[in-house]
Amino acid sequence: MRAAVFRQGDLVAATIPDPEPQAGQVLVKTLACGICGSDLHAFHHADKMVETAQRSGSSFSMDLTRDIVFGHEFCAEVLDHGPGTEKKLKAGTRVCSMPLAITMNGDKANVQPVGYSNTMPGGFAEQMVLNELMLLEVPNGLPTEQAALTEPMAVGWHAVQKANMTTEDIPLVIGCGPVGLAVIAGLKIKGIHPIIAADFSPARRKLAEQMGADIVLDPKVDAPYARWTKEATPEGYDPTNIMTLLGMGPKLRPGVIFECVGVPGVIQQIFEGAPRQARVVVVGVCMEQDKFEPFFGINKELNVQFVLGYTPEEFALTLTHLAEGKIDGSPLVTGKVGVEGVKEAFSELGNPEKHAKILVEPWR
Amino acid sequence: MRAAVFRQGDLVAATIPDPEPQAGQVLVKTLACGICGSDLHAFHHADKMVETAQRSGSSFSMDLTRDIVFGHEFCAEVLDHGPGTEKKLKAGTRVCSMPLAITMNGDKANVQPVGYSNTMPGGFAEQMVLNELMLLEVPNGLPTEQAALTEPMAVGWHAVQKANMTTEDIPLVIGCGPVGLAVIAGLKIKGIHPIIAADFSPARRKLAEQMGADIVLDPKVDAPYARWTKEATPEGYDPTNIMTLLGMGPKLRPGVIFECVGVPGVIQQIFEGAPRQARVVVVGVCMEQDKFEPFFGINKELNVQFVLGYTPEEFALTLTHLAEGKIDGSPLVTGKVGVEGVKEAFSELGNPEKHAKILVEPWR
Repeated sequence: MRAAVFRQGDLVAATIPDPEPQAGQVLVKTLACGICGSDLHAFHHADKMVETAQRSGSSFSMDLTRDIVFGHEFCAEVLDHGPGTEKKLKAGTRVCSMPLAITMNGDKANVQPVGYSNTMPGGFAEQMVLNELMLLEVPNGLPTEQAALTEPMAVGWHAVQKANMTTEDIPLVIGCGPVGLAVIAGLKIKGIHPIIAADFSPARRKLAEQMGADIVLDPKVDAPYARWTKEATPEGYDPTNIMTLLGMGPKLRPGVIFECVGVPGVIQQIFEGAPRQARVVVVGVCMEQDKFEPFFGINKELNVQFVLGYTPEEFALTLTHLAEGKIDGSPLVTGKVGVEGVKEAFSELGNPEKHAKILVEPWR
Repeated sequence: MRAAVFRQGDLVAATIPDPEPQAGQVLVKTLACGICGSDLHAFHHADKMVETAQRSGSSFSMDLTRDIVFGHEFCAEVLDHGPGTEKKLKAGTRVCSMPLAITMNGDKANVQPVGYSNTMPGGFAEQMVLNELMLLEVPNGLPTEQAALTEPMAVGWHAVQKANMTTEDIPLVIGCGPVGLAVIAGLKIKGIHPIIAADFSPARRKLAEQMGADIVLDPKVDAPYARWTKEATPEGYDPTNIMTLLGMGPKLRPGVIFECVGVPGVIQQIFEGAPRQARVVVVGVCMEQDKFEPFFGINKELNVQFVLGYTPEEFALTLTHLAEGKIDGSPLVTGKVGVEGVKEAFSELGNPEKHAKILVEPWR
């Protein structure tokens, strides 16, 4: 089959062996698969990514001297069933799945990430094998390109769930790339307002509005924390009033700040800007060493929740949200390429004015 | 009055003007006042401390060219009442108070930290002025030296409260200085077991046992996180079992790690050692820049709660805990000095084998 292959540090279009479904697995045709920021990171910093993931207890075990096919944000079509499958979803059925491959050995399970593995090719290839028990049928005639957004949208939904929010909270989303946009979509579904979002890019700010942000800021022009404070301040609030100091006067609404950038320095910026008692949800995936001043966290009694991925329930619910139109992800899709176009797409994604999400359609 | 004065970067025994109680204030005689790690930090890094505190939104406003009297962990005796006071606590009554001075101007309140202020001398002086409304009478004949531990013990109680623990959680206390010991005391009162505590110092480990730790480790000899895992692992637990991976098998008990060291690098060590989904409570006060790898937090979905101080209710309850014998702080008190001995005591506190808490008795 044709695939965009990560080979010896480069991305090449190549023909590789077709995968074969093992016990409990299903062979699928990849219909569309989004390119994720983590794929870009893996392309540029694969050594470091593998090393950091292993030190931090991940199940990652890629051998970078061997071929890897990236791609974990996919919608696919059932082609064939491996041995020991129930075959409830017939050939031709469109499906989504969490990008995890489980191989059983008795009651022992080995879990590998589809798309970051030497043995489980991801969605930048014409075919994949997936576990039958993880397949979700695409409901409601949801278009394939929207179904392929289930995975990145589930990341945002999970982050919002982990924030344990109430409608009293005022969220501030720092960074409106695909992760920030998914968080905005999750906040909108939860009915939390106003959603304040900040990004330097005009195109990303426009997407933030389309996804449901109520207030969209360019940090060069409007200080996000000052705007947050304005929104959070009730009528008649006076921080120097004795009743306020004793906790008996009007209070600022609570703040929840979503870090959706994932580069060093942003957490310290948030620590400097955050209001007292704020909760910070770190959704951006920074794989480098970072610097910060703990005293800012201490003095403000900040809470920092790091998040990763989603639960199976959150993943399934996100597909439902898309199918019911609670999330319209179509503005995010800014390009489509075949396997030959993947390397150029990786480079084009560096321009936030031009692109948010590029889908790979390996059948092209 | 005599006082140990922080003057031009040095600590000197000197005679300074007696304080005078203003409206709502009470003049007290300092009976005993503990030396805190923050006092040591202020002595050695005052410039940096003021600068960091101001940048992080603190009400600190010390002018380092003028005299400052440290001391915020005190027990005192009422001497006289200022204008507009209710005088419910007669002269001779022993009292504790949160180390905050509130000055009113109409309904505007100015709050200053007693002991980190140019105008409100702390407990390393013979006399202080305190707000009448913040005074708590020392109950039950509790000895003065124990009552003086209310403030540091309240810090530990607050940290345990902010951790929102259940008896399912297994705590790991990293560092058994006064902060870690206060956390251990708080965990014991909450009935959470086993309490695992780690410190390189044999003397500190002995204190940890005396304060209620169930398992006390020397990190040079026993890896704290391996021991935590052993305690948290239920019978028959197998992380590779499919039921465990699906979240339906036995689970590790949840982990809560208390950072009670407060020096750069410890947070990263905790990120490396912590189990997945652990909560980290940062109680140690690190005022320097620190380095860490966010990906460890992300990959393990850690939650980090930074804490500072205590609420008025927590402070009052801690005095009750001491008075009722729920905390026996006496092993912590390893020395007593007069104002002449404060500078040497600051130096002696660098040796964990010799000292935990030194009390200043300015009347000596």
